[in-house]
Amino acid sequence: MKLKAIFHVDEMPKWGLALKNVKNLVQTAEPNSYLIEVLANSEAVKGYCEESFNDNLALMRQLPGLGVRFVACNNALKSLGIEQSRLAPFVTVVQAGVLELVEKQAEGFAYIKP
Amino acid sequence: MKLKAIFHVDEMPKWGLALKNVKNLVQTAEPNSYLIEVLANSEAVKGYCEESFNDNLALMRQLPGLGVRFVACNNALKSLGIEQSRLAPFVTVVQAGVLELVEKQAEGFAYIKP
Amino acid sequence: MKLKAIFHVDEMPKWGLALKNVKNLVQTAEPNSYLIEVLANSEAVKGYCEESFNDNLALMRQLPGLGVRFVACNNALKSLGIEQSRLAPFVTVVQAGVLELVEKQAEGFAYIKP
Repeated sequence: MKLKAIFHVDEMPKWGLALKNVKNLVQTAEPNSYLIEVLANSEAVKGYCEESFNDNLALMRQLPGLGVRFVACNNALKSLGIEQSRLAPFVTVVQAGVLELVEKQAEGFAYIKP
Repeated sequence: MKLKAIFHVDEMPKWGLALKNVKNLVQTAEPNSYLIEVLANSEAVKGYCEESFNDNLALMRQLPGLGVRFVACNNALKSLGIEQSRLAPFVTVVQAGVLELVEKQAEGFAYIKP
Repeated sequence: MKLKAIFHVDEMPKWGLALKNVKNLVQTAEPNSYLIEVLANSEAVKGYCEESFNDNLALMRQLPGLGVRFVACNNALKSLGIEQSRLAPFVTVVQAGVLELVEKQAEGFAYIKP
C-alpha cells in the first residue's frame, strides 16, 4: 500500500518548514512508494508565483521530479488577484483548496499541517 | 457518500481564515451533501460570545442554516469563566473538544486546521 | 475500539496548549481505552531536553504513566545538534517525524494540531 500524505500550507512563513517536512518524507520513503501532495490556499498561494523567486521555490522545483504534487486553491488566487500564468509551471490549480483537503483525506491521505 | 469535515479553531486570530474556508467548502459542495462542523477550543471559544459581536459572528450566523454545526469545548469555557448563556444560540457545547476531534475523525470526517 | 490520537507539535510556544489538550483527552477517556501519542518535530524537540526543565516538562512527566507516548523526530534532533542523551528518559526517537504522522494516521489515529 502506498504512503499517502497531503501537506496544508496557508501562511507564507510556513513554507520553509512545510518543504523541509516534505523533503524529509521523500528521503525516508522508498521511491515510487508514495503519493505526496502540497495544498496551498489563502495567502500561501503567493509562494507559487514565479516572480517571488526565493529559496522556497528553488526547493519546490526539485520535488515534482520526485513525485510531489503542488496544488493551488483557485478561490485564493482570485481573492488575491493572481493570474494562473504567474504560477510556477509545476503547479496544478483546483477550484477549492478545502474541498481538495477533504477529498484527499477521504481517499486515505494523511493530513499534515506544518 | 456525504462529504464530512471538521474544522479546528483554537486561536482567536484564526477565526476569519477558518470561516472563509468553511464558506468556500459550503459554496463548492452540493446542498445537503455534506456534514461540516467547526470545533472551537482553548481561547477560540471567546469567538462564540454574543457580546463580542464582530464580522466573524455575523458570518457564522449565516452558516447553521446551510448545515454547518458550531461546537464549543466546555473545558475551555470553564477555564475562561464563560457561562454558556453568553454563547450565540446556534452553538452546541461538548464536554471535551479534543474528544470531539478524535471521534469525528473516527467517523470519517476530514480534519482541517486553518 | 480504542480511541487513537496523535498530537503534532512543531513550535516551542505550542507545547503548553498541546499538553493541556492531551491532559483533557486523558481525563475524559476511560483508562486503558486509548492510544495517545505526541509527536514533536522541528524546533519543538527542544521541549524534550532535560536541561530545559520547565512547567511543560513537569506536566509531560505525569503522562507516560497514564499511557501517553512522547516521540521525537531524529531529523530535527540532528538538524539542531541535540544528542539523544539530553532528552527526557520517557521520549522515544523515530527517524522521521513526518513518516510517523503518516503511518499513525494510516493506522486510524486521529490527527490533532494544537
